Amino acid sequence: MAYVNPSGEFSRDQRYIATRITADGRDGYPVEPGRYRLVVSRACPWANRAIIVRRLLGLEDALSMGVAGPTHDERSWSFDLDPDGRDPVLGIERLQQAYFARFPDYDKGITVPAIVDVPTGRVVTNDFAQITLDLSLEWAKHHRPGAPELYPAALRDEIDRVNKHVFADVNNGVYRAGFAGSQEAYEKAYHRLFDRLDQLSAHLAGHRYLVGDTITEADVRLFTTLVRFDAVYHGHFKCNRAKLSEMPVLWAYAKDLFQTPGFGDTIDFADIKRHYYEVHREINPTGIVPAGPDFSTWLGEHGRDRLGGRPFGDGTPPPPPRPGEEVPAGHGATG
Amino acid sequence: MAYVNPSGEFSRDQRYIATRITADGRDGYPVEPGRYRLVVSRACPWANRAIIVRRLLGLEDALSMGVAGPTHDERSWSFDLDPDGRDPVLGIERLQQAYFARFPDYDKGITVPAIVDVPTGRVVTNDFAQITLDLSLEWAKHHRPGAPELYPAALRDEIDRVNKHVFADVNNGVYRAGFAGSQEAYEKAYHRLFDRLDQLSAHLAGHRYLVGDTITEADVRLFTTLVRFDAVYHGHFKCNRAKLSEMPVLWAYAKDLFQTPGFGDTIDFADIKRHYYEVHREINPTGIVPAGPDFSTWLGEHGRDRLGGRPFGDGTPPPPPRPGEEVPAGHGATG
Repeated sequence: MAYVNPSGEFSRDQRYIATRITADGRDGYPVEPGRYRLVVSRACPWANRAIIVRRLLGLEDALSMGVAGPTHDERSWSFDLDPDGRDPVLGIERLQQAYFARFPDYDKGITVPAIVDVPTGRVVTNDFAQITLDLSLEWAKHHRPGAPELYPAALRDEIDRVNKHVFADVNNGVYRAGFAGSQEAYEKAYHRLFDRLDQLSAHLAGHRYLVGDTITEADVRLFTTLVRFDAVYHGHFKCNRAKLSEMPVLWAYAKDLFQTPGFGDTIDFADIKRHYYEVHREINPTGIVPAGPDFSTWLGEHGRDRLGGRPFGDGTPPPPPRPGEEVPAGHGATG
Repeated sequence: MAYVNPSGEFSRDQRYIATRITADGRDGYPVEPGRYRLVVSRACPWANRAIIVRRLLGLEDALSMGVAGPTHDERSWSFDLDPDGRDPVLGIERLQQAYFARFPDYDKGITVPAIVDVPTGRVVTNDFAQITLDLSLEWAKHHRPGAPELYPAALRDEIDRVNKHVFADVNNGVYRAGFAGSQEAYEKAYHRLFDRLDQLSAHLAGHRYLVGDTITEADVRLFTTLVRFDAVYHGHFKCNRAKLSEMPVLWAYAKDLFQTPGFGDTIDFADIKRHYYEVHREINPTGIVPAGPDFSTWLGEHGRDRLGGRPFGDGTPPPPPRPGEEVPAGHGATG
């Protein structure tokens, strides 16, 4: 999935399976309720985007969800949270089985999120950036009544522009800092990250959301990194100019989203910490998981209402998570 | 120096060289101005105590100081800050030469602080807990005019009691967390540490200093751990319930001391970070040193004056550090 190049910089392998599930089925996989299964891990920020978007749009009935455990060995994600260690719908123990079912010689990363075609057991796509956009646009017929527009046509260029910078400097930037192979590469990533956070902070000081006055795909993408910041990126990835909780605008912005239905109720801090600290033995050889910080502060006041904004636009907030899809007790902000 | 026992707990080897330099010379090493050299590293919290006490007491003329560099290999501290890699007074490259000069088969830790007998080149003692007390009591005749009483007879029992808890749970507690060999041992150390910090905080909310109303040895010992907290212990040792800067009473107390002559002017944040992150490859295999946090906050307001107190009692603050003994430009709070 990733390697460190000769200058010590972390490079993410961005060759994802580009097949798309579309309304017109042009890649051979038409949108069809009940046919596909979204496989995620609550630990993973890229999968977290899809969990949030599926919930905001109310796609639970149309697209089921399998949840892999937070830790894994070199064979990648497995269904060890399920009672018998198998995903109850796909009947497999490891996500790689769905990848190999489609590509017997698959040699790239076994990543989440992935969408699997249930009848054939084959992975369709793991292209995380496209998956959430397709949930918004291609699956529109199956959205709940009151689903928000997360990628509205009029704002698409602006959202794409923001996403591009947020991906390079923030979402992937924290990994570039944490997995840097040299002091120089680390410092370069660190400064790019905090320069971008400063710039986002200046914008968000006067705007409740990143683009327009409603929640969009851009907020989802920034949120999944911010919510992991103090839990793992600050210490484990050495992104330590300051904690998120020490950056007043971004902290208020992140708390506002956390407290919005569909965001904080997808966050499993326990799984997040276990994933990063137990899996990345190359930077945390002991595998010991920090006991802090205190996550109850995510429920504190944010005061962002004063900026106005209409979180769901002309739509409505989603209902609580479905039974069986809740974050386990003790794993959230009140853990 | 230290090992992890079968239950995963870090144990500090506390067999130090117990020879003492005393006014009466009963161990063969009488106090004598110009005869001994205190060897320190600015990175090390145990040595930092001696640097501070020597400065507060004005012992610079009586007891010279050699400064080892922040990083070292398995042969321990070396004089790589000196232009030719040798201590200019002792003429040695590595501190272990002074240890072997006294004990050819020495097999315990080569530690700082150490006091070396210059004429013979032999280490006299590395018993850090005794060294600072002896600087206060045995070297009294050579203190500067206006030197504070750091270990006054009337408060000695109370200081000893506080020191005992602070050593076990805080000074050594951060190491017990950072070098724990099991999740259980780590969590035990973590909770002991923060429980003790909570208790110290409750006391310091109403008292400017730990014992009595002046600076004592107890404050010196707590300070050298607190000043390293956000720089290294929070992330590197996983002491991350909160940063020091998020614990209002302790943060104000630590800033107050930092801004007191003799404390903050001994702190080399750059060396501190390099030491922990470069030397402890077993918990930071890459050796990459975090770029944060921002240390200029140490110069912010502390508001502790309202609690009264007489920092130096009937004495006076020390003058600025001697030329040649200053912390290098850019390594302090304004770096």
